[in-house]
Amino acid sequence: MDLYTYYRSTSSYRVRIALALKGLDVQQLPVNLLQGEQNQPAYRALNPQGRVPTLRSDEGELLIQSPAIIEYLEERYPQPPLLPAEPLARARQRGVAALIGCDIHPLHNVSVLNRLRQLGVDEDGVNAWIGHWIGEGLTAVEALIGDQGFCFGAPGLADVYLLPQLYAARRFTVDLSAFPRILRVERLALEHPAFRQAHPDAQADKPA
Amino acid sequence: MDLYTYYRSTSSYRVRIALALKGLDVQQLPVNLLQGEQNQPAYRALNPQGRVPTLRSDEGELLIQSPAIIEYLEERYPQPPLLPAEPLARARQRGVAALIGCDIHPLHNVSVLNRLRQLGVDEDGVNAWIGHWIGEGLTAVEALIGDQGFCFGAPGLADVYLLPQLYAARRFTVDLSAFPRILRVERLALEHPAFRQAHPDAQADKPA
Repeated sequence: MDLYTYYRSTSSYRVRIALALKGLDVQQLPVNLLQGEQNQPAYRALNPQGRVPTLRSDEGELLIQSPAIIEYLEERYPQPPLLPAEPLARARQRGVAALIGCDIHPLHNVSVLNRLRQLGVDEDGVNAWIGHWIGEGLTAVEALIGDQGFCFGAPGLADVYLLPQLYAARRFTVDLSAFPRILRVERLALEHPAFRQAHPDAQADKPA
Repeated sequence: MDLYTYYRSTSSYRVRIALALKGLDVQQLPVNLLQGEQNQPAYRALNPQGRVPTLRSDEGELLIQSPAIIEYLEERYPQPPLLPAEPLARARQRGVAALIGCDIHPLHNVSVLNRLRQLGVDEDGVNAWIGHWIGEGLTAVEALIGDQGFCFGAPGLADVYLLPQLYAARRFTVDLSAFPRILRVERLALEHPAFRQAHPDAQADKPA
Protein backbone atom coordinates (compact mmCIF):
# COMPACT_ATOMS: atom_id res chain seq x y z
CA MET A 1 0.00 0.00 0.00
CA ASP A 2 1.02 3.63 -0.59
CA LEU A 3 -0.13 6.50 1.62
CA TYR A 4 -0.13 10.07 0.32
CA THR A 5 0.41 12.06 3.48
CA TYR A 6 1.62 15.29 5.07
CA TYR A 7 3.37 15.15 8.40
CA ARG A 8 1.21 17.75 10.16
CA SER A 9 -2.16 16.90 8.58
CA THR A 10 -4.64 15.76 11.24
CA SER A 11 -6.33 13.21 9.00
CA SER A 12 -3.03 11.80 7.65
CA TYR A 13 -1.90 11.39 11.26
CA ARG A 14 -5.07 9.39 12.06
CA VAL A 15 -4.38 6.94 9.24
CA ARG A 16 -0.73 6.62 10.30
CA ILE A 17 -1.83 5.66 13.83
CA ALA A 18 -4.28 3.06 12.50
CA LEU A 19 -1.57 1.55 10.26
CA ALA A 20 0.99 1.52 13.08
CA LEU A 21 -1.44 -0.08 15.58
CA LYS A 22 -2.05 -2.84 13.03
CA GLY A 23 1.66 -3.20 12.30
CA LEU A 24 1.11 -2.49 8.60
CA ASP A 25 4.03 -1.25 6.55
CA VAL A 26 3.18 1.21 3.76
CA GLN A 27 5.18 3.42 1.46
CA GLN A 28 4.62 7.02 2.51
CA LEU A 29 4.47 9.55 -0.33
CA PRO A 30 4.64 13.10 1.07
CA VAL A 31 2.40 15.80 -0.41
CA ASN A 32 3.71 19.23 0.56
CA LEU A 33 0.58 21.22 1.39
CA LEU A 34 2.56 24.43 1.95
CA GLN A 35 3.84 24.25 -1.63
CA GLY A 36 0.35 23.47 -2.97
CA GLU A 37 1.20 20.00 -4.26
CA GLN A 38 -2.34 18.86 -3.35
CA ASN A 39 -3.68 21.14 -6.09
CA GLN A 40 -1.40 19.88 -8.87
CA PRO A 41 -3.26 18.01 -11.64
CA ALA A 42 -1.23 14.85 -10.97
CA TYR A 43 -2.49 14.70 -7.38
CA ARG A 44 -6.03 15.83 -8.23
CA ALA A 45 -6.22 12.87 -10.63
CA LEU A 46 -5.73 10.61 -7.58
CA ASN A 47 -7.93 12.59 -5.20
CA PRO A 48 -10.59 14.84 -6.78
CA GLN A 49 -10.86 16.77 -3.54
CA GLY A 50 -7.17 17.69 -3.51
CA ARG A 51 -6.76 16.69 0.13
CA VAL A 52 -4.60 14.25 2.06
CA PRO A 53 -4.56 11.41 2.88
CA THR A 54 -5.09 9.12 -0.12
CA LEU A 55 -4.41 5.40 0.22
CA ARG A 56 -3.51 3.20 -2.74
CA SER A 57 -4.52 -0.35 -1.88
CA ASP A 58 -2.51 -3.44 -2.78
CA GLU A 59 -4.91 -3.87 -5.72
CA GLY A 60 -4.07 -0.35 -6.91
CA GLU A 61 -7.43 1.16 -5.89
CA LEU A 62 -7.46 4.72 -4.57
CA LEU A 63 -9.24 5.43 -1.29
CA ILE A 64 -9.98 8.91 0.03
CA GLN A 65 -11.24 10.34 3.36
CA SER A 66 -9.62 9.15 6.58
CA PRO A 67 -12.85 7.74 8.11
CA ALA A 68 -13.36 5.53 5.04
CA ILE A 69 -9.68 4.55 4.87
CA ILE A 70 -9.58 3.55 8.55
CA GLU A 71 -12.77 1.46 8.30
CA TYR A 72 -11.26 -0.20 5.21
CA LEU A 73 -8.08 -1.06 7.12
CA GLU A 74 -10.18 -2.46 9.97
CA GLU A 75 -12.12 -4.71 7.57
CA ARG A 76 -9.18 -5.78 5.41
CA TYR A 77 -6.63 -6.19 8.22
CA PRO A 78 -8.77 -6.98 11.28
CA GLN A 79 -5.97 -7.83 13.73
CA PRO A 80 -5.41 -6.22 16.13
CA PRO A 81 -8.89 -4.66 16.04
CA LEU A 82 -9.53 -0.93 16.45
CA LEU A 83 -13.17 -1.68 17.27
CA PRO A 84 -14.58 -4.19 19.79
CA ALA A 85 -16.91 -6.95 18.64
CA GLU A 86 -20.18 -5.78 20.19
CA PRO A 87 -22.25 -3.27 18.13
CA LEU A 88 -23.04 -0.89 21.02
CA ALA A 89 -19.38 -0.77 22.10
CA ARG A 90 -18.41 -0.13 18.48
CA ALA A 91 -20.93 2.73 18.38
CA ARG A 92 -19.33 4.33 21.44
CA GLN A 93 -15.88 4.29 19.81
CA ARG A 94 -17.32 5.57 16.54
CA GLY A 95 -19.35 8.25 18.35
CA VAL A 96 -16.22 9.84 19.80
CA ALA A 97 -14.41 9.48 16.47
CA ALA A 98 -17.27 11.19 14.61
CA LEU A 99 -17.56 13.96 17.19
CA ILE A 100 -13.89 14.80 16.61
CA GLY A 101 -13.95 14.14 12.86
CA CYS A 102 -17.15 16.09 12.15
CA ASP A 103 -17.57 18.68 14.91
CA ILE A 104 -14.02 19.72 15.85
CA HIS A 105 -11.39 19.13 13.20
CA PRO A 106 -13.28 20.49 10.13
CA LEU A 107 -13.65 23.85 11.85
CA HIS A 108 -9.93 24.49 12.27
CA ASN A 109 -8.69 23.03 9.00
CA VAL A 110 -6.18 25.46 7.44
CA SER A 111 -8.47 26.11 4.45
CA VAL A 112 -11.30 27.07 6.82
CA LEU A 113 -9.11 29.43 8.84
CA ASN A 114 -7.85 31.08 5.65
CA ARG A 115 -11.40 31.64 4.49
CA LEU A 116 -12.28 33.24 7.83
CA ARG A 117 -9.40 35.67 7.24
CA GLN A 118 -10.69 36.39 3.73
CA LEU A 119 -14.03 37.35 5.31
CA GLY A 120 -12.21 39.95 7.38
CA VAL A 121 -11.90 38.06 10.66
CA ASP A 122 -8.70 39.16 12.46
CA GLU A 123 -6.22 36.86 14.24
CA ASP A 124 -7.86 37.37 17.64
CA GLY A 125 -11.16 36.29 16.08
CA VAL A 126 -9.54 33.29 14.39
CA ASN A 127 -7.98 32.19 17.70
CA ALA A 128 -11.28 32.62 19.54
CA TRP A 129 -12.97 30.51 16.84
CA ILE A 130 -10.40 27.71 17.18
CA GLY A 131 -10.56 27.76 20.97
CA HIS A 132 -14.35 27.68 20.98
CA TRP A 133 -14.75 24.60 18.76
CA ILE A 134 -11.90 22.63 20.30
CA GLY A 135 -13.03 23.49 23.83
CA GLU A 136 -16.69 22.65 23.24
CA GLY A 137 -15.85 19.42 21.44
CA LEU A 138 -13.30 18.15 23.95
CA THR A 139 -15.69 18.93 26.82
CA ALA A 140 -18.10 16.42 25.28
CA VAL A 141 -15.30 13.90 24.61
CA GLU A 142 -14.21 14.16 28.26
CA ALA A 143 -17.77 13.24 29.32
CA LEU A 144 -17.95 10.27 26.95
CA ILE A 145 -14.68 8.40 27.50
CA GLY A 146 -13.76 6.05 30.34
CA ASP A 147 -11.73 6.34 33.52
CA GLN A 148 -8.93 3.91 32.71
CA GLY A 149 -6.46 3.19 29.93
CA PHE A 150 -7.04 4.72 26.51
CA CYS A 151 -10.46 6.22 25.67
CA PHE A 152 -12.21 2.89 26.19
CA GLY A 153 -9.41 0.72 27.58
CA ALA A 154 -7.27 -0.77 24.82
CA PRO A 155 -6.14 1.57 22.02
CA GLY A 156 -8.98 1.94 19.54
CA LEU A 157 -10.75 4.09 16.98
CA ALA A 158 -11.52 6.91 19.42
CA ASP A 159 -7.81 7.21 20.26
CA VAL A 160 -6.91 7.21 16.55
CA TYR A 161 -8.95 10.43 16.28
CA LEU A 162 -8.19 11.94 19.69
CA LEU A 163 -4.39 12.08 19.54
CA PRO A 164 -4.19 14.09 16.28
CA GLN A 165 -6.86 16.40 17.70
CA LEU A 166 -4.74 16.97 20.82
CA TYR A 167 -1.66 17.64 18.68
CA ALA A 168 -3.66 20.36 16.90
CA ALA A 169 -4.99 21.72 20.21
CA ARG A 170 -1.44 22.10 21.50
CA ARG A 171 -0.27 23.78 18.29
CA PHE A 172 -3.06 26.30 18.82
CA THR A 173 -2.14 26.56 22.56
CA VAL A 174 -5.62 25.54 23.73
CA ASP A 175 -5.81 25.00 27.51
CA LEU A 176 -6.46 21.30 28.18
CA SER A 177 -6.24 21.37 31.98
CA ALA A 178 -10.01 20.84 32.44
CA PHE A 179 -9.81 17.42 30.74
CA PRO A 180 -8.09 14.92 33.08
CA ARG A 181 -9.32 11.83 31.23
CA ILE A 182 -8.13 13.19 27.90
CA LEU A 183 -4.75 14.11 29.42
CA ARG A 184 -4.44 10.55 30.75
CA VAL A 185 -4.97 9.16 27.25
CA GLU A 186 -2.42 11.61 25.86
CA ARG A 187 0.19 10.50 28.42
CA LEU A 188 -0.36 6.83 27.57
CA ALA A 189 -0.09 7.49 23.85
CA LEU A 190 3.13 9.45 24.17
CA GLU A 191 4.75 6.27 25.49
CA HIS A 192 3.08 3.84 23.06
CA PRO A 193 5.28 2.70 20.13
CA ALA A 194 2.55 2.89 17.46
CA PHE A 195 1.44 6.40 18.48
CA ARG A 196 5.09 7.51 18.63
CA GLN A 197 5.82 6.12 15.18
CA ALA A 198 2.81 7.96 13.71
CA HIS A 199 3.56 11.32 15.39
CA PRO A 200 4.24 14.32 13.11
CA ASP A 201 7.67 14.78 14.70
CA ALA A 202 8.69 11.28 13.55
CA GLN A 203 7.84 11.83 9.86
CA ALA A 204 10.45 12.04 7.10
CA ASP A 205 8.70 15.03 5.50
CA LYS A 206 8.90 17.18 8.63
CA PRO A 207 11.14 20.16 7.83
CA ALA A 208 14.51 20.08 9.66
CA MET B 1 -35.86 2.16 19.50
CA ASP B 2 -36.40 5.87 20.13
CA LEU B 3 -34.90 8.61 17.97
CA TYR B 4 -34.47 12.13 19.29
CA THR B 5 -34.75 14.20 16.14
CA TYR B 6 -35.52 17.58 14.59
CA TYR B 7 -37.29 17.69 11.26
CA ARG B 8 -34.81 20.00 9.52
CA SER B 9 -31.58 18.72 11.10
CA THR B 10 -29.27 17.31 8.43
CA SER B 11 -27.90 14.55 10.63
CA SER B 12 -31.35 13.56 11.97
CA TYR B 13 -32.54 13.33 8.35
CA ARG B 14 -29.65 10.94 7.54
CA VAL B 15 -30.64 8.58 10.33
CA ARG B 16 -34.29 8.73 9.28
CA ILE B 17 -33.32 7.68 5.74
CA ALA B 18 -31.22 4.76 7.05
CA LEU B 19 -34.10 3.60 9.28
CA ALA B 20 -36.63 3.91 6.45
CA LEU B 21 -34.43 2.05 3.94
CA LYS B 22 -34.17 -0.79 6.47
CA GLY B 23 -37.89 -0.69 7.19
CA LEU B 24 -37.27 -0.10 10.90
CA ASP B 25 -40.00 1.48 12.96
CA VAL B 26 -38.85 3.77 15.76
CA GLN B 27 -40.57 6.21 18.09
CA GLN B 28 -39.55 9.72 17.08
CA LEU B 29 -39.08 12.19 19.93
CA PRO B 30 -38.81 15.74 18.57
CA VAL B 31 -36.24 18.12 20.07
CA ASN B 32 -37.11 21.70 19.14
CA LEU B 33 -33.75 23.29 18.33
CA LEU B 34 -35.31 26.73 17.79
CA GLN B 35 -36.60 26.67 21.36
CA GLY B 36 -33.25 25.45 22.69
CA GLU B 37 -34.53 22.10 23.96
CA GLN B 38 -31.17 20.54 23.04
CA ASN B 39 -29.55 22.60 25.80
CA GLN B 40 -31.98 21.61 28.57
CA PRO B 41 -30.35 19.51 31.33
CA ALA B 42 -32.76 16.61 30.62
CA TYR B 43 -31.54 16.35 27.03
CA ARG B 44 -27.89 17.02 27.88
CA ALA B 45 -28.07 14.04 30.24
CA LEU B 46 -28.84 11.89 27.20
CA ASN B 47 -26.41 13.59 24.82
CA PRO B 48 -23.49 15.49 26.43
CA GLN B 49 -22.97 17.41 23.20
CA GLY B 50 -26.51 18.77 23.19
CA ARG B 51 -27.05 17.87 19.55
CA VAL B 52 -29.50 15.75 17.60
CA PRO B 53 -29.89 12.94 16.74
CA THR B 54 -29.66 10.57 19.71
CA LEU B 55 -30.81 6.96 19.34
CA ARG B 56 -31.96 4.87 22.29
CA SER B 57 -31.41 1.21 21.39
CA ASP B 58 -33.80 -1.60 22.25
CA GLU B 59 -31.48 -2.35 25.20
CA GLY B 60 -31.87 1.25 26.42
CA GLU B 61 -28.34 2.32 25.42
CA LEU B 62 -27.87 5.86 24.13
CA LEU B 63 -26.01 6.38 20.86
CA ILE B 64 -24.83 9.75 19.56
CA GLN B 65 -23.41 11.05 16.26
CA SER B 66 -25.17 10.10 13.03
CA PRO B 67 -22.13 8.30 11.47
CA ALA B 68 -21.90 6.02 14.52
CA ILE B 69 -25.68 5.50 14.69
CA ILE B 70 -25.90 4.57 11.00
CA GLU B 71 -22.99 2.09 11.22
CA TYR B 72 -24.71 0.60 14.30
CA LEU B 73 -27.97 0.17 12.38
CA GLU B 74 -26.06 -1.46 9.52
CA GLU B 75 -24.42 -3.96 11.90
CA ARG B 76 -27.47 -4.67 14.04
CA TYR B 77 -30.05 -4.72 11.24
CA PRO B 78 -28.02 -5.77 8.17
CA GLN B 79 -30.92 -6.24 5.71
CA PRO B 80 -31.25 -4.54 3.33
CA PRO B 81 -27.61 -3.43 3.43
CA LEU B 82 -26.49 0.20 3.06
CA LEU B 83 -22.99 -1.00 2.24
CA PRO B 84 -21.91 -3.62 -0.31
CA ALA B 85 -19.93 -6.67 0.81
CA GLU B 86 -16.55 -5.92 -0.74
CA PRO B 87 -14.18 -3.71 1.34
CA LEU B 88 -13.09 -1.41 -1.52
CA ALA B 89 -16.69 -0.83 -2.60
CA ARG B 90 -17.59 -0.10 1.03
CA ALA B 91 -14.73 2.42 1.16
CA ARG B 92 -16.11 4.23 -1.89
CA GLN B 93 -19.55 4.61 -0.25
CA ARG B 94 -17.95 5.68 3.02
CA GLY B 95 -15.61 8.09 1.23
CA VAL B 96 -18.52 10.08 -0.20
CA ALA B 97 -20.35 9.91 3.14
CA ALA B 98 -17.30 11.23 5.02
CA LEU B 99 -16.67 13.96 2.45
CA ILE B 100 -20.20 15.26 3.04
CA GLY B 101 -20.23 14.56 6.79
CA CYS B 102 -16.80 16.10 7.51
CA ASP B 103 -16.07 18.63 4.76
CA ILE B 104 -19.45 20.12 3.84
CA HIS B 105 -22.14 19.85 6.49
CA PRO B 106 -20.10 20.92 9.57
CA LEU B 107 -19.30 24.23 7.88
CA HIS B 108 -22.92 25.32 7.48
CA ASN B 109 -24.32 24.01 10.73
CA VAL B 110 -26.50 26.70 12.31
CA SER B 111 -24.16 27.04 15.31
CA VAL B 112 -21.23 27.66 12.95
CA LEU B 113 -23.13 30.29 10.95
CA ASN B 114 -24.17 32.05 14.15
CA ARG B 115 -20.55 32.14 15.32
CA LEU B 116 -19.49 33.67 12.00
CA ARG B 117 -22.05 36.43 12.61
CA GLN B 118 -20.68 36.95 16.13
CA LEU B 119 -17.24 37.50 14.57
CA GLY B 120 -18.70 40.33 12.51
CA VAL B 121 -19.26 38.54 9.21
CA ASP B 122 -22.29 40.03 7.43
CA GLU B 123 -25.04 38.08 5.61
CA ASP B 124 -23.33 38.40 2.22
CA GLY B 125 -20.21 36.90 3.78
CA VAL B 126 -22.20 34.11 5.43
CA ASN B 127 -23.89 33.27 2.13
CA ALA B 128 -20.55 33.28 0.28
CA TRP B 129 -19.13 30.97 2.95
CA ILE B 130 -22.03 28.51 2.59
CA GLY B 131 -21.88 28.57 -1.20
CA HIS B 132 -18.13 28.02 -1.21
CA TRP B 133 -18.11 24.89 0.97
CA ILE B 134 -21.19 23.30 -0.59
CA GLY B 135 -19.96 24.04 -4.11
CA GLU B 136 -16.43 22.76 -3.52
CA GLY B 137 -17.67 19.63 -1.76
CA LEU B 138 -20.37 18.72 -4.28
CA THR B 139 -17.90 19.22 -7.14
CA ALA B 140 -15.82 16.42 -5.60
CA VAL B 141 -18.91 14.26 -4.96
CA GLU B 142 -19.95 14.69 -8.62
CA ALA B 143 -16.54 13.34 -9.69
CA LEU B 144 -16.73 10.36 -7.34
CA ILE B 145 -20.21 8.91 -7.91
CA GLY B 146 -21.41 6.72 -10.76
CA ASP B 147 -23.39 7.29 -13.95
CA GLN B 148 -26.47 5.22 -13.16
CA GLY B 149 -28.98 4.78 -10.38
CA PHE B 150 -28.25 6.20 -6.94
CA CYS B 151 -24.66 7.26 -6.09
CA PHE B 152 -23.35 3.75 -6.64
CA GLY B 153 -26.40 1.95 -8.07
CA ALA B 154 -28.71 0.71 -5.32
CA PRO B 155 -29.56 3.16 -2.49
CA GLY B 156 -26.68 3.13 0.00
CA LEU B 157 -24.66 5.03 2.57
CA ALA B 158 -23.53 7.75 0.17
CA ASP B 159 -27.18 8.52 -0.67
CA VAL B 160 -28.09 8.60 3.04
CA TYR B 161 -25.65 11.54 3.33
CA LEU B 162 -26.21 13.16 -0.05
CA LEU B 163 -29.96 13.77 0.10
CA PRO B 164 -29.91 15.76 3.37
CA GLN B 165 -26.98 17.75 1.98
CA LEU B 166 -29.00 18.59 -1.13
CA TYR B 167 -31.97 19.64 0.99
CA ALA B 168 -29.64 22.06 2.81
CA ALA B 169 -28.15 23.27 -0.49
CA ARG B 170 -31.63 24.11 -1.78
CA ARG B 171 -32.58 25.89 1.45
CA PHE B 172 -29.49 28.05 0.93
CA THR B 173 -30.38 28.45 -2.79
CA VAL B 174 -27.05 27.01 -3.98
CA ASP B 175 -26.94 26.49 -7.77
CA LEU B 176 -26.75 22.74 -8.47
CA SER B 177 -26.97 22.88 -12.28
CA ALA B 178 -23.29 21.87 -12.73
CA PHE B 179 -23.92 18.50 -11.07
CA PRO B 180 -25.92 16.25 -13.43
CA ARG B 181 -25.09 13.01 -11.61
CA ILE B 182 -26.11 14.48 -8.27
CA LEU B 183 -29.34 15.84 -9.77
CA ARG B 184 -30.10 12.35 -11.14
CA VAL B 185 -29.75 10.88 -7.64
CA GLU B 186 -31.97 13.62 -6.23
CA ARG B 187 -34.69 12.87 -8.79
CA LEU B 188 -34.60 9.14 -7.98
CA ALA B 189 -34.80 9.80 -4.24
CA LEU B 190 -37.74 12.16 -4.56
CA GLU B 191 -39.75 9.21 -5.91
CA HIS B 192 -38.42 6.57 -3.51
CA PRO B 193 -40.74 5.69 -0.58
CA ALA B 194 -38.00 5.52 2.09
CA PHE B 195 -36.47 8.85 1.11
CA ARG B 196 -39.94 10.42 0.97
CA GLN B 197 -40.85 9.10 4.40
CA ALA B 198 -37.63 10.54 5.88
CA HIS B 199 -37.95 13.96 4.23
CA PRO B 200 -38.25 17.02 6.54
CA ASP B 201 -41.61 17.92 4.95
CA ALA B 202 -43.05 14.57 6.09
CA GLN B 203 -42.14 14.97 9.78
CA ALA B 204 -44.70 15.48 12.53
CA ASP B 205 -42.57 18.22 14.17
CA LYS B 206 -42.52 20.39 11.05
CA PRO B 207 -44.38 23.63 11.87
CA ALA B 208 -47.69 23.97 10.05
